[in-house]
Amino acid sequence: MLPQELLVSLPPLPPEHRFAASSGRFETPGQVAAIATRLAKISKNILITRADARTAALVKRRIRKAEYFPLSGAIRVWGDRTVRGKGKIAVVCAGTSDIPVAEEAEITAQVMGNDVIAIHDIGVADIHRLMSNRERLTQARVIVVVAGMEGALPGVVGGMVSCPVIAVPTSVGYGASFNGLAALLGMLNSCGSNVTVVNIDNGFGAGYVASLINRV
Amino acid sequence: MLPQELLVSLPPLPPEHRFAASSGRFETPGQVAAIATRLAKISKNILITRADARTAALVKRRIRKAEYFPLSGAIRVWGDRTVRGKGKIAVVCAGTSDIPVAEEAEITAQVMGNDVIAIHDIGVADIHRLMSNRERLTQARVIVVVAGMEGALPGVVGGMVSCPVIAVPTSVGYGASFNGLAALLGMLNSCGSNVTVVNIDNGFGAGYVASLINRV
Amino acid sequence: MLPQELLVSLPPLPPEHRFAASSGRFETPGQVAAIATRLAKISKNILITRADARTAALVKRRIRKAEYFPLSGAIRVWGDRTVRGKGKIAVVCAGTSDIPVAEEAEITAQVMGNDVIAIHDIGVADIHRLMSNRERLTQARVIVVVAGMEGALPGVVGGMVSCPVIAVPTSVGYGASFNGLAALLGMLNSCGSNVTVVNIDNGFGAGYVASLINRV
Amino acid sequence: MLPQELLVSLPPLPPEHRFAASSGRFETPGQVAAIATRLAKISKNILITRADARTAALVKRRIRKAEYFPLSGAIRVWGDRTVRGKGKIAVVCAGTSDIPVAEEAEITAQVMGNDVIAIHDIGVADIHRLMSNRERLTQARVIVVVAGMEGALPGVVGGMVSCPVIAVPTSVGYGASFNGLAALLGMLNSCGSNVTVVNIDNGFGAGYVASLINRV
Amino acid sequence: MLPQELLVSLPPLPPEHRFAASSGRFETPGQVAAIATRLAKISKNILITRADARTAALVKRRIRKAEYFPLSGAIRVWGDRTVRGKGKIAVVCAGTSDIPVAEEAEITAQVMGNDVIAIHDIGVADIHRLMSNRERLTQARVIVVVAGMEGALPGVVGGMVSCPVIAVPTSVGYGASFNGLAALLGMLNSCGSNVTVVNIDNGFGAGYVASLINRV
Amino acid sequence: MLPQELLVSLPPLPPEHRFAASSGRFETPGQVAAIATRLAKISKNILITRADARTAALVKRRIRKAEYFPLSGAIRVWGDRTVRGKGKIAVVCAGTSDIPVAEEAEITAQVMGNDVIAIHDIGVADIHRLMSNRERLTQARVIVVVAGMEGALPGVVGGMVSCPVIAVPTSVGYGASFNGLAALLGMLNSCGSNVTVVNIDNGFGAGYVASLINRV
Amino acid sequence: MLPQELLVSLPPLPPEHRFAASSGRFETPGQVAAIATRLAKISKNILITRADARTAALVKRRIRKAEYFPLSGAIRVWGDRTVRGKGKIAVVCAGTSDIPVAEEAEITAQVMGNDVIAIHDIGVADIHRLMSNRERLTQARVIVVVAGMEGALPGVVGGMVSCPVIAVPTSVGYGASFNGLAALLGMLNSCGSNVTVVNIDNGFGAGYVASLINRV
Amino acid sequence: MLPQELLVSLPPLPPEHRFAASSGRFETPGQVAAIATRLAKISKNILITRADARTAALVKRRIRKAEYFPLSGAIRVWGDRTVRGKGKIAVVCAGTSDIPVAEEAEITAQVMGNDVIAIHDIGVADIHRLMSNRERLTQARVIVVVAGMEGALPGVVGGMVSCPVIAVPTSVGYGASFNGLAALLGMLNSCGSNVTVVNIDNGFGAGYVASLINRV
Repeated sequence: MLPQELLVSLPPLPPEHRFAASSGRFETPGQVAAIATRLAKISKNILITRADARTAALVKRRIRKAEYFPLSGAIRVWGDRTVRGKGKIAVVCAGTSDIPVAEEAEITAQVMGNDVIAIHDIGVADIHRLMSNRERLTQARVIVVVAGMEGALPGVVGGMVSCPVIAVPTSVGYGASFNGLAALLGMLNSCGSNVTVVNIDNGFGAGYVASLINRV
Repeated sequence: MLPQELLVSLPPLPPEHRFAASSGRFETPGQVAAIATRLAKISKNILITRADARTAALVKRRIRKAEYFPLSGAIRVWGDRTVRGKGKIAVVCAGTSDIPVAEEAEITAQVMGNDVIAIHDIGVADIHRLMSNRERLTQARVIVVVAGMEGALPGVVGGMVSCPVIAVPTSVGYGASFNGLAALLGMLNSCGSNVTVVNIDNGFGAGYVASLINRV
Repeated sequence: MLPQELLVSLPPLPPEHRFAASSGRFETPGQVAAIATRLAKISKNILITRADARTAALVKRRIRKAEYFPLSGAIRVWGDRTVRGKGKIAVVCAGTSDIPVAEEAEITAQVMGNDVIAIHDIGVADIHRLMSNRERLTQARVIVVVAGMEGALPGVVGGMVSCPVIAVPTSVGYGASFNGLAALLGMLNSCGSNVTVVNIDNGFGAGYVASLINRV
Repeated sequence: MLPQELLVSLPPLPPEHRFAASSGRFETPGQVAAIATRLAKISKNILITRADARTAALVKRRIRKAEYFPLSGAIRVWGDRTVRGKGKIAVVCAGTSDIPVAEEAEITAQVMGNDVIAIHDIGVADIHRLMSNRERLTQARVIVVVAGMEGALPGVVGGMVSCPVIAVPTSVGYGASFNGLAALLGMLNSCGSNVTVVNIDNGFGAGYVASLINRV
Repeated sequence: MLPQELLVSLPPLPPEHRFAASSGRFETPGQVAAIATRLAKISKNILITRADARTAALVKRRIRKAEYFPLSGAIRVWGDRTVRGKGKIAVVCAGTSDIPVAEEAEITAQVMGNDVIAIHDIGVADIHRLMSNRERLTQARVIVVVAGMEGALPGVVGGMVSCPVIAVPTSVGYGASFNGLAALLGMLNSCGSNVTVVNIDNGFGAGYVASLINRV
Repeated sequence: MLPQELLVSLPPLPPEHRFAASSGRFETPGQVAAIATRLAKISKNILITRADARTAALVKRRIRKAEYFPLSGAIRVWGDRTVRGKGKIAVVCAGTSDIPVAEEAEITAQVMGNDVIAIHDIGVADIHRLMSNRERLTQARVIVVVAGMEGALPGVVGGMVSCPVIAVPTSVGYGASFNGLAALLGMLNSCGSNVTVVNIDNGFGAGYVASLINRV
Repeated sequence: MLPQELLVSLPPLPPEHRFAASSGRFETPGQVAAIATRLAKISKNILITRADARTAALVKRRIRKAEYFPLSGAIRVWGDRTVRGKGKIAVVCAGTSDIPVAEEAEITAQVMGNDVIAIHDIGVADIHRLMSNRERLTQARVIVVVAGMEGALPGVVGGMVSCPVIAVPTSVGYGASFNGLAALLGMLNSCGSNVTVVNIDNGFGAGYVASLINRV
Repeated sequence: MLPQELLVSLPPLPPEHRFAASSGRFETPGQVAAIATRLAKISKNILITRADARTAALVKRRIRKAEYFPLSGAIRVWGDRTVRGKGKIAVVCAGTSDIPVAEEAEITAQVMGNDVIAIHDIGVADIHRLMSNRERLTQARVIVVVAGMEGALPGVVGGMVSCPVIAVPTSVGYGASFNGLAALLGMLNSCGSNVTVVNIDNGFGAGYVASLINRV
């Protein structure tokens, strides 16, 4: 699978600075660091996703404030921490395996000016735990739900709240999960009318759209 | 999709009487009625699945006690109502669309000598209703869960009980449900370790295995 | 493909009145009319989707204000026309083939209290027309984009605006469109970070989520 | 493919101790060893599946009784060897390639208190050998059948016995086996009415459900 | 599914008389009858496959000796019954549903000058019956095995004999049989080294190749 | 599958007159006839594809010169027969089943001002016939090759010429042809470097591009 | 993809010596060498397929006559070179990429007592070369055709001869070849009625069946 | 994925010098260098695609003029720079990730005697940039459009011009891009009637066909 490096900032930069590029074959760590340095001059907040340790080291050498999150590969420059979102964004996942994608969504939402509630330990197989998180979920204005394997969590969470839910299938699983396809199909067929879906493992996209919704 | 006619009886007949045949092109209503009449002489209980109204009429003319269930297409001859299963079998589905397959599972389990609890109105999007059915679910010794679309119900029910759960995906849905494929994949990837799966729309198979488990 | 009948209302009814049921085999026109009559007593606005002409006739006989839209199969009871959405919702599609799904999204959004802009005649192959609709698009607070075949329109529209875009793939096409799969995959891989996706032909779901976003 | 680490015990632990987590990226060997140590204080039997040699070494250093099975990657702590199952569980596979998955099922069943019959050398292509194992098969109260490639073994074994059969497709094969998809589809379409299916390579799940059935 | 009309004869005609054409939209019953009449002048044996009753009636009006087999749709003109094959060809299937495809293979083999053994009642779920047919199977020089659903029969039969086995998957089944795909994949992954495969429902092709092998 | 109605003309009309619309549900025969009448005032050549007999009758009533080709469903108004293409376009297919798609390509190319060579009777299984058509093939400046089933013809023809070859997979076939998918994949993997591919059954597109190439 | 080690001999050994095992994880080089040594005592001819260099070295140390073919990974012990086949077996492929699979088929056929004609340089894109090989092809009693990418060669060769053709799709290709799926589907849909198919890359199976046919 | 080495020259060499071979397992760097040296004696222009650095070094040692392009792996010998194409060929892609495939198309077109316009920075999400490149696009006589992910660019570019467009899907993307399948399907369903498609990542094929069209 190809890594994805993404740079965003707040307020949004002109499109030539946002790039959904990929494969380290083309963007060398040096190139990413150079772009980041250029961006740092015009924006207080920068997000680079799916960077490896070497790229992170190069970026941190040039931009002091840069932080690296090895689980998701995100590099965050978070100079402007003003909260711009009107409510809270909850990011929900079931367990350790989905945390990298959830983290990508959380950091994206934070760097775009949102207050984020991270709920990393609820799954469809434990209905009591789901119930006991109800209050935290209803506090959110938008919810991102990250799930692999059967992908059932967004539908269940969607039924517990009345706000928009953005579902992110992950490639976590084995066998008939077919690298996230099972979760993706499950989410697209969710009974919850408040559920929309983004690409497999696309934590960035989910955090981005959640931010847009939270600002409308 | 091809219809399936199945004949079973209790106690089990020799294999030449059990046939997983199909397409009305080959088994005419008359042939099915003839086979049923032959079986009625050696067995008090007979089940014919996925029969059309014409076949049902022919069978009922020859076997007085035969009952026809048009939703699922099952024809039931239930002469021996002795309960042989050690506990109860719950058959669970979410709504009107999945009822035909659930009914097929229920009638199969009944005709094989089981006490059946039918729960037709719980879905993953309504967690309160799920919770309020907990007691009925925990009464069962085996549970059949029928679900289309995202196929999430078996995993959620599986987490609420500790008995075996047999999941039946249905072809109910549209678009990315791909005629039950989404539900099937979801169930195979279920987080619940107590969940096993049968073919799409195979209510008969689920009821049959549930009966076997309930008799072991 | 199974038809889908959906009933929603404003303010939202308890879940037992919202049902994502399907196949007319189970909900007869009479049953749908009965449910609608019951709903009409507690809600001024009702939406029934994917109804056939016979169901529509039955419903209209009982509920005078009911209107039927044969293209999409929607039945609308629109007693309360208060606009509750904070901004406008644009519903965009390329041509006559996608209009039924777009219409379903539009009626859903209207009946849930939104001001809807319908743009039915822009496609990716005519960049001038796209440009000339830019102003209308930027007026919207949320955009629903309906597209079959290659499914490219949401990504292009997504790049023209900065609000959330909900993409609805349609099953319109032939050959390698595989009943909407090509459009679905295209939309999930959209370059636009502001795009999320619902199930193939799910105009209702798109209109529903757009309404939720417009009310947050 | 992601590895899967699973911890179960007998009597069943509360759900927060059972986790279907994965990818060594998140659960480091040290974390797994720590969890195991914690579990060892409250349970005499522990099972960790799909562990690598390094994790096994760490666990064994802390828990003396831990045994490591390199073929399947299972780590077993088997302090309480009381047999709780009512009958025997047979685990059947055809040859060397399917043994790792069969072993996972066997160790799961043992650690959950069952008497296990391992039959590792029967395949559909040798009908005499199948026949000569008939007696051993009919001794079992539940049978787990593990098969890759065409996945025909469960249907054949299912026809030889009248107890429940749990089929486990394996990813063993090449070309049109599509990593276990051929075996999975074959098993879902099995003529045997007593066959249910779990995910590809899910030896743990099969052993777990077999244990549940054997205890009902 | 498109019907297929095929004309062959013995000895083989030049290629312009053999056509693997299809869709009745293009070859009208009249055209097929005309072609058959033309062929009847140069060949004593003719086979037309997948013809409907109307085509059959037209052909029979022109060619007295023509026989129609409604199950498979084959029209046979069998003027020259000389046996040219060196041994016998067995055509095996499990039950009523697969008989049409088996019949197509049998008639093809007969009309090409072979002695055919039809075995229509053995399946993988009944190992005794399989065993009791062993002698009949070992009499054959080539075996055609027709099977739907899981497609396991060719591998089992392949293990019982040492001659070439030609496997024909059928589209019989439902749900995860995916119109014969499950059977096709099962057969391609067969453990039997003596098994080769033809297209789904291609009884003609199997009978044709079996004839070629029987004549080499 | 949805029908497709396409209108083109020469010289090209502005885009609002070219529409790739579909489903007769939306464009009634009357609407198509009205559009055609309007087009007939500004263009001497009109092509409507995939029209049914009723639409054709309506169009012919209004436009005298309109001709209907029932095999492909094309309606042709061919007022301006000037040849504008620089060379000849050959349209090749193997047999009766592929002729409707080939005819659509031929009429498209003719109406756009090209000299068309139709070769409807060569297939990969008859290498002599292929060889004997070599001269006719090398006369062409562009070749459209229409093929179903295995889709091998474009690669073979591509190796016989040095001009561009446009391959059109058709949905003709059964079983593992998967409605043209097998032919499509075959053509995309063609060894011939001069082969490009259009959508399944898209005779119009192939004829259109061939015309463009023939005019450059 | 898993490697496959296969041992066959002539005359055929009892089934416990033929094993379609795989993954070197289970059969270590030492185990394969031990099995081979045991076989060498009872059979003059041995074939081990898909062995790596280390396994080959071990086997050669124990069995002097063993030869290793690194392209295909075959190890051949060919003590008995008696020709038992009635005619010649031709093994055909198009180029360097398919040679490993072709070589596996050739060595299998040789070791089973056949005279093999290897034709490695004909493809569908060069019709003259095909024609110039006609005579060599018609000398064969059975033909194995190995092809990747579009998989068209078996159909073309099938049309040039009247003997049985065994088609072997290979995983050679990229993009839409989907690891041999395109070639496999192409071959299953071949117009040639004399073509049957084996699994992707299964050169052994093709050589084995060709030998059986050549001995009938 | 297998690399592909291709050698072409201008004027075209006889077919035995053009080979679509692959896997470095069979063509060692030394073999490629030897073939290139042989070709260099009869042709001034040579193209080797998808070569690694080691092969490039060997070739450059023997052929002084050889240039290596590491992004695409192309080796170019460009002795004859005569422009033979009648117009310009534009090669368009959206960003850094697609450049390797675009570069392969460009070098192929150049070495075959064409004037190439490279436009590497336009995507569907930036409609202004698209518009501002209109003039450059309309200068071209043929356009190659390279795109991954959603594959929408060819349809949009196709609508801006009236010349033939050759679409190349790339395997760039993640999740539901399924290694280029999403882009491939999108392009096959493109609304633009002037779009044809080649295999995923097949930059060479696109450049080759564009050259043919530009020379007709």
